[in-house]
Amino acid sequence: MNKQINTIVFIGSGNVATRLAVALQEMKKSILQVYSRSEKRAGILAKKLGVGFTSNLSNVNREADLYILSVSDNALEEIVEKLDLDTQFIVHTSGTSSMDVLNKFDSFGVFYPLQTFSTEKNISFKNIPLCIEANSAENLELLQDLAAIISEDVQQINSEQRRALHVAAVFANNFTNYMYAVAEDILQDNDLPFDLLKPLIEETAEKLKAHIPHEAQTGPARRNDQKTIEEHLKILKAHPEYQKIYQLISEQIKRKHHLNDKL
Amino acid sequence: MNKQINTIVFIGSGNVATRLAVALQEMKKSILQVYSRSEKRAGILAKKLGVGFTSNLSNVNREADLYILSVSDNALEEIVEKLDLDTQFIVHTSGTSSMDVLNKFDSFGVFYPLQTFSTEKNISFKNIPLCIEANSAENLELLQDLAAIISEDVQQINSEQRRALHVAAVFANNFTNYMYAVAEDILQDNDLPFDLLKPLIEETAEKLKAHIPHEAQTGPARRNDQKTIEEHLKILKAHPEYQKIYQLISEQIKRKHHLNDKL
Repeated sequence: MNKQINTIVFIGSGNVATRLAVALQEMKKSILQVYSRSEKRAGILAKKLGVGFTSNLSNVNREADLYILSVSDNALEEIVEKLDLDTQFIVHTSGTSSMDVLNKFDSFGVFYPLQTFSTEKNISFKNIPLCIEANSAENLELLQDLAAIISEDVQQINSEQRRALHVAAVFANNFTNYMYAVAEDILQDNDLPFDLLKPLIEETAEKLKAHIPHEAQTGPARRNDQKTIEEHLKILKAHPEYQKIYQLISEQIKRKHHLNDKL
Repeated sequence: MNKQINTIVFIGSGNVATRLAVALQEMKKSILQVYSRSEKRAGILAKKLGVGFTSNLSNVNREADLYILSVSDNALEEIVEKLDLDTQFIVHTSGTSSMDVLNKFDSFGVFYPLQTFSTEKNISFKNIPLCIEANSAENLELLQDLAAIISEDVQQINSEQRRALHVAAVFANNFTNYMYAVAEDILQDNDLPFDLLKPLIEETAEKLKAHIPHEAQTGPARRNDQKTIEEHLKILKAHPEYQKIYQLISEQIKRKHHLNDKL
């Protein structure tokens, strides 16, 4: 029988750690312990899992098959420096950090789920791309097997690609969500409920099943409808910061489509 | 029996006109004719509906209960000027133009479906907010009845609110779609398929069922993770225009959440 990962320690207790720990535990993997700098937050996740926790790195259980470091990129370096393990297998879940930040260990890799997580909202990993990378073929196989028990979309992605993927995800998720927030603000100013926009938002995402984004682009900037653009900028006069975004993105849409259309 | 709208002429043959005409015809309303400046485009929609068409405003059928003007805001004024009707009931479908651009007519109003449309993709109007406005209570009732046969979400929205709603829709749809296009570009540069982002894009829209956008915000700017932000700006160095957007939106997210968090 091949070697496989059965026992896991989580270093970190944020949204990614929480959703991943819950999903792996549901598939009968044994979570041994949760570490977090914050004893309170370690305790919350540990309680959800029914396992032990610590806020002291020296007390991290040394017997696990895998250590999943799921902390902010800012904290990662410091934790790696202080984490006193040697032959154990250690991965991080960061979209941005290179795999090599873990190269002081013997066995290391990356286990990056490409999704946005909430601490509260449970989510199935089945369709979430799990991007893996490891320092050896053997370790890659271990991660492949572990990833495949929760996701049908396991991808071998190197550090450089993963970084690009993470930037793309910032545009597709964080910045998109910010556009929703701006829209909500504008509606609130006019005593209109945000619910009005929900069918539009759904269809905007839905359209991508049939069209690439470039083809799906519509709106005043796409039509080069300068009259409407100027009207909109006037309506936004109470929010100079939204005017700035409106102007910048409209210019870019115009330029992009002007270059491509045979005008 | 109350008066009701049974026969309709469409002035315009774009995405909105097409989807609206198809939906109304499916509900047994009689489309009498299609006008478009472009004979070819008038013909395409007319053929889809099995009705007559013209590209000459003087030949517009004068017997309809309702005239739906669904043309670009740029073209609207000119068409209104040239359209020789008097007592007939006339509405436009624009998000931006005031109802009053039609005030040379006796009976006028607005019939604005808040959605993004494709000429090809059929879409149910059932959940689409139909925003209506009219110059009299009687006309409003006529539009209310017509709208209600295709949509369960008929809203009385005045011209000022509708303008704001349209700006919000530009952020929620056009600019969101542009974010997807940027993401696609970044992935292409790195030989990664756009499909990788689809579960993330779906979940980003899905999250709004439980959270307002402000609460749903995540990412490096939300966490004030300057290290990652700078890393991302470096990765974008081949695309100065994307760097500019990344920087501007990140600053705004930071400012917005910094002001709100009790830091």
